[in-house]
Amino acid sequence: MKNYSVGVLGATGAVGQKFIRLLQNHPWFTIKALGASGRSAGKAYKDAANWIESTPIPAEIADIIVKDCTAAEFAGIDFVFSGLDSSVATEIEGEFAKAGIPVISNAKNYRTHPNVPLLVPEVNPDHIDLIKTQTFTEDGSGWIVTNPNCVVIPLVMSLRPLFDNFGVKSVILTSLQAISGAGYPGVPSLDILGNVIPFIGGEEPKIADEPLKLLGKLKDNTVEFADFPIQATATRVPVLNGHFLSVTVELENPPADINDAINAMKTWKSPISDLGLPSAPAYPLSIYDDPRYPQPRLHADSENGMQTAVGRVRPSNVFDISYVAMAHNTIRGAAGGAILNAELLVKKGYLN
Amino acid sequence: MKNYSVGVLGATGAVGQKFIRLLQNHPWFTIKALGASGRSAGKAYKDAANWIESTPIPAEIADIIVKDCTAAEFAGIDFVFSGLDSSVATEIEGEFAKAGIPVISNAKNYRTHPNVPLLVPEVNPDHIDLIKTQTFTEDGSGWIVTNPNCVVIPLVMSLRPLFDNFGVKSVILTSLQAISGAGYPGVPSLDILGNVIPFIGGEEPKIADEPLKLLGKLKDNTVEFADFPIQATATRVPVLNGHFLSVTVELENPPADINDAINAMKTWKSPISDLGLPSAPAYPLSIYDDPRYPQPRLHADSENGMQTAVGRVRPSNVFDISYVAMAHNTIRGAAGGAILNAELLVKKGYLN
Amino acid sequence: MKNYSVGVLGATGAVGQKFIRLLQNHPWFTIKALGASGRSAGKAYKDAANWIESTPIPAEIADIIVKDCTAAEFAGIDFVFSGLDSSVATEIEGEFAKAGIPVISNAKNYRTHPNVPLLVPEVNPDHIDLIKTQTFTEDGSGWIVTNPNCVVIPLVMSLRPLFDNFGVKSVILTSLQAISGAGYPGVPSLDILGNVIPFIGGEEPKIADEPLKLLGKLKDNTVEFADFPIQATATRVPVLNGHFLSVTVELENPPADINDAINAMKTWKSPISDLGLPSAPAYPLSIYDDPRYPQPRLHADSENGMQTAVGRVRPSNVFDISYVAMAHNTIRGAAGGAILNAELLVKKGYLN
Amino acid sequence: MKNYSVGVLGATGAVGQKFIRLLQNHPWFTIKALGASGRSAGKAYKDAANWIESTPIPAEIADIIVKDCTAAEFAGIDFVFSGLDSSVATEIEGEFAKAGIPVISNAKNYRTHPNVPLLVPEVNPDHIDLIKTQTFTEDGSGWIVTNPNCVVIPLVMSLRPLFDNFGVKSVILTSLQAISGAGYPGVPSLDILGNVIPFIGGEEPKIADEPLKLLGKLKDNTVEFADFPIQATATRVPVLNGHFLSVTVELENPPADINDAINAMKTWKSPISDLGLPSAPAYPLSIYDDPRYPQPRLHADSENGMQTAVGRVRPSNVFDISYVAMAHNTIRGAAGGAILNAELLVKKGYLN
Repeated sequence: MKNYSVGVLGATGAVGQKFIRLLQNHPWFTIKALGASGRSAGKAYKDAANWIESTPIPAEIADIIVKDCTAAEFAGIDFVFSGLDSSVATEIEGEFAKAGIPVISNAKNYRTHPNVPLLVPEVNPDHIDLIKTQTFTEDGSGWIVTNPNCVVIPLVMSLRPLFDNFGVKSVILTSLQAISGAGYPGVPSLDILGNVIPFIGGEEPKIADEPLKLLGKLKDNTVEFADFPIQATATRVPVLNGHFLSVTVELENPPADINDAINAMKTWKSPISDLGLPSAPAYPLSIYDDPRYPQPRLHADSENGMQTAVGRVRPSNVFDISYVAMAHNTIRGAAGGAILNAELLVKKGYLN
Repeated sequence: MKNYSVGVLGATGAVGQKFIRLLQNHPWFTIKALGASGRSAGKAYKDAANWIESTPIPAEIADIIVKDCTAAEFAGIDFVFSGLDSSVATEIEGEFAKAGIPVISNAKNYRTHPNVPLLVPEVNPDHIDLIKTQTFTEDGSGWIVTNPNCVVIPLVMSLRPLFDNFGVKSVILTSLQAISGAGYPGVPSLDILGNVIPFIGGEEPKIADEPLKLLGKLKDNTVEFADFPIQATATRVPVLNGHFLSVTVELENPPADINDAINAMKTWKSPISDLGLPSAPAYPLSIYDDPRYPQPRLHADSENGMQTAVGRVRPSNVFDISYVAMAHNTIRGAAGGAILNAELLVKKGYLN
Repeated sequence: MKNYSVGVLGATGAVGQKFIRLLQNHPWFTIKALGASGRSAGKAYKDAANWIESTPIPAEIADIIVKDCTAAEFAGIDFVFSGLDSSVATEIEGEFAKAGIPVISNAKNYRTHPNVPLLVPEVNPDHIDLIKTQTFTEDGSGWIVTNPNCVVIPLVMSLRPLFDNFGVKSVILTSLQAISGAGYPGVPSLDILGNVIPFIGGEEPKIADEPLKLLGKLKDNTVEFADFPIQATATRVPVLNGHFLSVTVELENPPADINDAINAMKTWKSPISDLGLPSAPAYPLSIYDDPRYPQPRLHADSENGMQTAVGRVRPSNVFDISYVAMAHNTIRGAAGGAILNAELLVKKGYLN
Repeated sequence: MKNYSVGVLGATGAVGQKFIRLLQNHPWFTIKALGASGRSAGKAYKDAANWIESTPIPAEIADIIVKDCTAAEFAGIDFVFSGLDSSVATEIEGEFAKAGIPVISNAKNYRTHPNVPLLVPEVNPDHIDLIKTQTFTEDGSGWIVTNPNCVVIPLVMSLRPLFDNFGVKSVILTSLQAISGAGYPGVPSLDILGNVIPFIGGEEPKIADEPLKLLGKLKDNTVEFADFPIQATATRVPVLNGHFLSVTVELENPPADINDAINAMKTWKSPISDLGLPSAPAYPLSIYDDPRYPQPRLHADSENGMQTAVGRVRPSNVFDISYVAMAHNTIRGAAGGAILNAELLVKKGYLN
């Protein structure tokens, strides 16, 4: 099997660093180029990055000279992962796509674009074909695929079996989000030590919107969005990794017995479980019976940070079902999710 | 004005210690007796208690000899505050009431008793007259009054104006609760440091039930409970003081303009504001416009820990209104609430 | 008694905000002018500052228009407190002094200047006369007084009685410093949550040097520095307020009985205790016998944050005496210390 | 190579759980028996233990029936690891040794026994021969080996090269210890959240004493202790794992150039590096040049929690050399250290 030469855009940032750590020893992908802002370009990566991961900079990465994020600089690269800041992602990712370099992006900019797949392999793998509608290049060689917001991941992973079996009418949720979600330097310790911050700018609209595209149906090269309201309150808590959600769901056709809903979640089978994707967790959705679980500090790293954990599934006296859900926000909810997208794209023949 | 000789039951526990600290220099009440379990009885308070408050044990308290919690030991005391553990409160509080010693209790045991007021002075001061229906003594000299669970306080304080103006049809909430709510030693640090625990035993039923009594109407010496479902998910977060709630409310008659609801909360006037109660906050309900507020670490101590703070009031795309609310759980939500109850009872002539 | 019109330089920063909060309702000083960088000048204070104190901006401060930090803008002000950043303090404080406006500064810039008192009222009040040697103005109307680094405060407060009674030969200490010492935004939460950082840039030399000036003797208008080495390791810990020190001291003339040293600390009398300074703590040095104390979260606010707490005083098997010491770093160790300096300057007739 | 059947005593406690997790998939050792107190005996392990590790109870362990800690119950077991509480370890470990079952213990009870090796494989592997002097059994089949206190590990690992090259005259240290060191439930969160506790009962004498045995010389079947004073101040900080030490050392023969000392630490070679022990870290002692490192949250897990990390090595103006050191307290400092001892004992022929 081919080994792909990949680039990382926004390589010095928190998401970029996570891409580098997760791609270390990846069986299919090898980092050959790193891009960052003009401030870093021209420097060795070890000098350009304020490395915050707990493991050292991989030896094969440390001396790579950081490039400007221009397609010309990335000639010969098979595709790029983007951890670019949203202030520059629209332009740069677009330029790469136009130059025929596929972009697998964690940035929010193209998530809502009608021709760009917002992709979670276990949730909507068929949306991948939306790529064919993209017109960045005439020959289809350049395109963009995105992964969703880090809160949306545990939400859609847990909603998928409920949506399929019973329909979803409305959702009310509160998120307790980890500090790593804000990047680095991110949240000042004076703000969050022993505290709760009741607001995260720009977060709630994404939580309300992105699941509707993810749970939508691809018909005639268009995603027909799912149609139900999601009310979200996004808070920050002093947790390192793992966005935690308290979710209450109104179902279209609630089962008479809550255990039917619990079983639907427990027996749900990932549509990509047989593809042999290296980063795919064996159990993408884990349902805990112990009411003390899941907990972000204990379980965010489950299955290398790629598992969504659910607990406290129970009937609601207002709606139909209530539960908590949690996933690692910078692995499953960011770099790891993008890498899994790339692996699916390889299997589906979009990368070669 | 008379200065009351008061006792504290459960004086060595976390709530008992808070009673002692809050009653230091109280203009109406002077602690004259302390009761605790047989393990502590007979010792000087300073030797019996593992004092965890940040200010030293008041000098006038340190050498008081702790008594057993029997009415005979408390002869001559005008009334007692109870911070007793629920495992013993039913029996002991009942015995005191039967002996003609009024009990103002923070324990949960009598909260649901049909003849016992579950009292928040700003929310349901008229329920106080339920005392007259109690039959602990023939002459009415012994009775029990309770204050609600510490999560229920910010909930009913914030619901009161909405309930009165628009009616409440249903409530979905998630609580982020401080560690001090579990007493001492309480939550092990290994469980909560940098973590979220998704379950607090016994908490959610209280949150669902107590507001219905508090918002009920006293008619013919009976409380007619309010009638709407409350769905609660109670979590623990690494915060010292201040229970934080994310609340979404369905209204009976929602206003056309959300600002009418916000104004109802902002202009709500406490029914006890003119009584001159020493522990009553000038502003029992504070509505923040800044979306970053309230925060438990910054605002739990507002107005000596007696204020409920509300923020992020906004329309909900699922229900009608969503907001966050927060109050100091061991002051407003426990010892301070009980003391305010006692002050109202003095003003209303129940204590003399 | 005269009420002084005071200004605050660096008013929007963390130290400036602390000055504003501590001067609210001060009996002698009234803030009449606020200075900050050009970015803030011209705006109302409430719009210029990202207020991080837990109490609201005082009403009488909120609408003050922030000025540029030039002496001309502060005409009519009796003196200024400076919370300026060290990158600009040399120039600005010097300009104010030259313009005849006394500067009472928390910045480090002039601390080592031979004519500028590095002043802690309880430790070296006589150093105040160094002011007379300053030549910023011909008539002596403009001068600068400084207070020491926030770690140095608990160190010199605890060393003073040992130095006076037994002489100090050498000191080895490790500091566990609170996050508020780094200002705002300061320490990223990703760096410090559940962690220890073993290095604080620029801190250790100050800890080694400033005590020698503070414990020095004023002779012939010059400070003869004390002469002993201080080995410091400065670390950051996830604590909000209160710098905590573990100190081991070699004495010149160690007492035969450690209790003599403990008594020297316990019976030490502040030289300013009879002056009636409004911000002076009744007990500037508190010695705990309970080995669990002091603790920063419990005791940093003792005596309004102005007390130094000492504990675990015991013999050392390497040197002579070992103990821990703690003081509130942004009150006693910064703004509160400067205000106490100003109060002493009033009493001593330097401000009029 | 033989696969050993091992038992774990104190299997339900925090150290016992760590033994179970670390022995999962161990190439040489297989857990065949678990012992705990009478309260747990007779139950399946999954029902007896309040499992606090982040990974699930290994499937092959969950249903093992917990035994009483008596040698008769452990017949057929090759040797046991002991995570027993010190209140019972003297008797139980002694009984096992007398019954011919070797005990590799993390308990403190036998550490100071003159015939029992206090063993750190990289520090004093030759002390292992002290086993031959034990008289628990006539045929030498039963014996006890211990590993040191969790603070002592990073101390002796870092002192070893200094002691060997320059001699050690005295040591002054402050420890910042993680909460996991206190076991479960251990430190109440109300005590440690955002706080420092200046005292840990019983810790400082162990820190002062155990290194002297570890650095001692085995002569004529006796350990001649090293002879220098260690002054320790042991504090607790809100860190999960990783005991952090600030150490200052007076050397017998200090090098003229501090770099000689740094090099002695950097080039130090572990005496067991060539033995192929499965749990031995490739680099048991890592010296960081970046002054920000090591940090417990980032580096406690380095080399599976078996590495000691050192940083900030620099000259001291009081003594000769100062540095910080850190190691994972429940892995390297407890269960992992004991397992490494067992591996060395296999290689040296004591277990067969």
